[in-house]
Amino acid sequence: MSKIITSAAEKILEKQPAEVFEKEKVVEEKREVKVMSVPSAITEYVGAARGDTIGLVIANVDYYLHEKMGLDKKYRSIGIISARTGAGPQIMAADEAVKATNTEVVSIELARDTKGGAGHGSLIILAAEDVSDARRAVEVALKELDRTFGDVYGCDVGHLELQYTARASLALEKAFGAPLGKAFGIIVGAPAGIGVVMADTAMKTANVEIVTYASPDAGTAHSNEVIITITGDSGAVRQSVIAAREVGLSLLRAMGQEPKTDTEPYI
Amino acid sequence: MSKIITSAAEKILEKQPAEVFEKEKVVEEKREVKVMSVPSAITEYVGAARGDTIGLVIANVDYYLHEKMGLDKKYRSIGIISARTGAGPQIMAADEAVKATNTEVVSIELARDTKGGAGHGSLIILAAEDVSDARRAVEVALKELDRTFGDVYGCDVGHLELQYTARASLALEKAFGAPLGKAFGIIVGAPAGIGVVMADTAMKTANVEIVTYASPDAGTAHSNEVIITITGDSGAVRQSVIAAREVGLSLLRAMGQEPKTDTEPYI
Amino acid sequence: MSKIITSAAEKILEKQPAEVFEKEKVVEEKREVKVMSVPSAITEYVGAARGDTIGLVIANVDYYLHEKMGLDKKYRSIGIISARTGAGPQIMAADEAVKATNTEVVSIELARDTKGGAGHGSLIILAAEDVSDARRAVEVALKELDRTFGDVYGCDVGHLELQYTARASLALEKAFGAPLGKAFGIIVGAPAGIGVVMADTAMKTANVEIVTYASPDAGTAHSNEVIITITGDSGAVRQSVIAAREVGLSLLRAMGQEPKTDTEPYI
Repeated sequence: MSKIITSAAEKILEKQPAEVFEKEKVVEEKREVKVMSVPSAITEYVGAARGDTIGLVIANVDYYLHEKMGLDKKYRSIGIISARTGAGPQIMAADEAVKATNTEVVSIELARDTKGGAGHGSLIILAAEDVSDARRAVEVALKELDRTFGDVYGCDVGHLELQYTARASLALEKAFGAPLGKAFGIIVGAPAGIGVVMADTAMKTANVEIVTYASPDAGTAHSNEVIITITGDSGAVRQSVIAAREVGLSLLRAMGQEPKTDTEPYI
Repeated sequence: MSKIITSAAEKILEKQPAEVFEKEKVVEEKREVKVMSVPSAITEYVGAARGDTIGLVIANVDYYLHEKMGLDKKYRSIGIISARTGAGPQIMAADEAVKATNTEVVSIELARDTKGGAGHGSLIILAAEDVSDARRAVEVALKELDRTFGDVYGCDVGHLELQYTARASLALEKAFGAPLGKAFGIIVGAPAGIGVVMADTAMKTANVEIVTYASPDAGTAHSNEVIITITGDSGAVRQSVIAAREVGLSLLRAMGQEPKTDTEPYI
Repeated sequence: MSKIITSAAEKILEKQPAEVFEKEKVVEEKREVKVMSVPSAITEYVGAARGDTIGLVIANVDYYLHEKMGLDKKYRSIGIISARTGAGPQIMAADEAVKATNTEVVSIELARDTKGGAGHGSLIILAAEDVSDARRAVEVALKELDRTFGDVYGCDVGHLELQYTARASLALEKAFGAPLGKAFGIIVGAPAGIGVVMADTAMKTANVEIVTYASPDAGTAHSNEVIITITGDSGAVRQSVIAAREVGLSLLRAMGQEPKTDTEPYI
């Protein structure tokens, strides 16, 4: 990889900086798709968002596929949030979506992905009796992603992810067994060892309760992450999440990295 | 990745085409190996093919290794098809190989790979009583890959893969429980949500039966794919596979992508 | 990836080849961190080493986290070796660390990682009654990595990894059930088929015993590797490991690759 870049760089150096810059930009923009307002001819397509996330809807799932997917008989319409990069941001976004619409979370699956990174992609399926509810839920979720990616910090050797809500809903319950209506936080560090120190810091910072602990061998899709989730009073959860973020950022910086978010921190 | 290189190459080509072209070619060719006719000093080496696939043969597997691998005692010779990128193309190719030779499929394993992509690599082991049969099977499989990669469409955010045969044989039976001698299709979409819509479209297009459904949590090596396999009358299976391909291509295009095959579509 | 392109592009734009060269070097060096002697403000940070490995220590693990991690009550201090790239090198390094210090190996987990490569990252947790022992163990392990990466050979289509010790200790016992105090070897090939041929060659070269066999479906985190471990007389184990290395290198070269180590072979 680095060899190829270097050799490309050597060649580029030989001429025309300005033009190269313009064209390079195009390549960059294609790497991660933006939410699109262009109407699509495909009725199933709802939109796309950061994290290479696609939002889809099926009005009336085929009977036999429905059965193979293990969906509850009462739901014929499904909304789909599917992403190459990120699980936490999409789960948080789905949590807001089910709060705001008449839908249910039927499944949350994690893929080992992030396009060569250390983490997860995700496949979230929401169900509704009416397709307009499913579509609305997917739209809400896609819009939430700008916020829920706020505390995702990436760099070459790893990444951090922090999530916080004052009131957990059904997606967080489904994914992590979060207590409904209570404050809830997600703390992720990669490589996994950084997640262990972040978890320890979070637990020592305030009076919070640990809900889940996941590591490469258990609770992840073999991602190189340690992930804990916590609950408690909203102030305590928020304080713990922030402390975990700060120690995680310091550790990545100690490795000579500059972890960055692509959007605005929200916690 | 290769797209970026290509576009970099296009830019570079504007000055000094000849020299740059020569150098770029070297880089490109190393990225994905071609079937080689150069004789190798290693007797186990049969050849290499697209998808970073290597074909190997062992005339007489070591007794203790044989046991640890769980191979049937009656087979001492094995043929190996091992790839970084692709499982469906290699399984289809192995299916043709066992039709054409006196070999058996002993195991098909999927790795989470594709070099940072969303899908699988594969390790397929064929067995024979005679090493020349094993070698012949591997040769047939490597040659088939140019065809079976025909309906693999890649782009930055994901990929599609479609396979179709009028008559499933032992590799497809081993991998998916395909009914022997019947028409069979494989439909893959990544990110996984695209696979769900492709599956739904396939099932609604013609009178086909769903054989397997796999998703990041079940039936895959945590790849970011939904994979279904279908059977039925050959016309119906083919029609369903084509419909799935078209909706998959449209969804990737709706995300601003240009999914492309590296070879010629065959379905 | 995109970061590198962008920063490369920015530099190129300045059109000053000499300076660019200097800066490119910086980018390159950041790709894999070196052991750092810069003191860190974070008390948990011990250091970083090749393979994007971070060494950490927690003096007194939080009570509830301790419980969730399933750690033995008697150990309050832990040392952490966590890496994006490599499992064998870190396990071998931890093996030396526990020989040299008063620590125990409590867990070894493999992540599917190597940043888009075919292999594993790792999370190793050592425990001690006293934090200074845990820190010392992590320091020893980080230093060992320059040696234990000696027979890791990478190239675009795959990699090989070889490890050998005359006397296996507790980390190798924990990870592979290695017989304590005996010679022990690890043989890894990727794509997995290359590992099968390396394993076969190793077993036929000398009178060694196979301890474990792992493949994409079993014993790995779905990496595209076949991994065997062997034991026996030290001369025989070493001879088998070397023979496996030679056949592996020849197979990758037959695919048109130039497998290389980043450091010095030690076997």
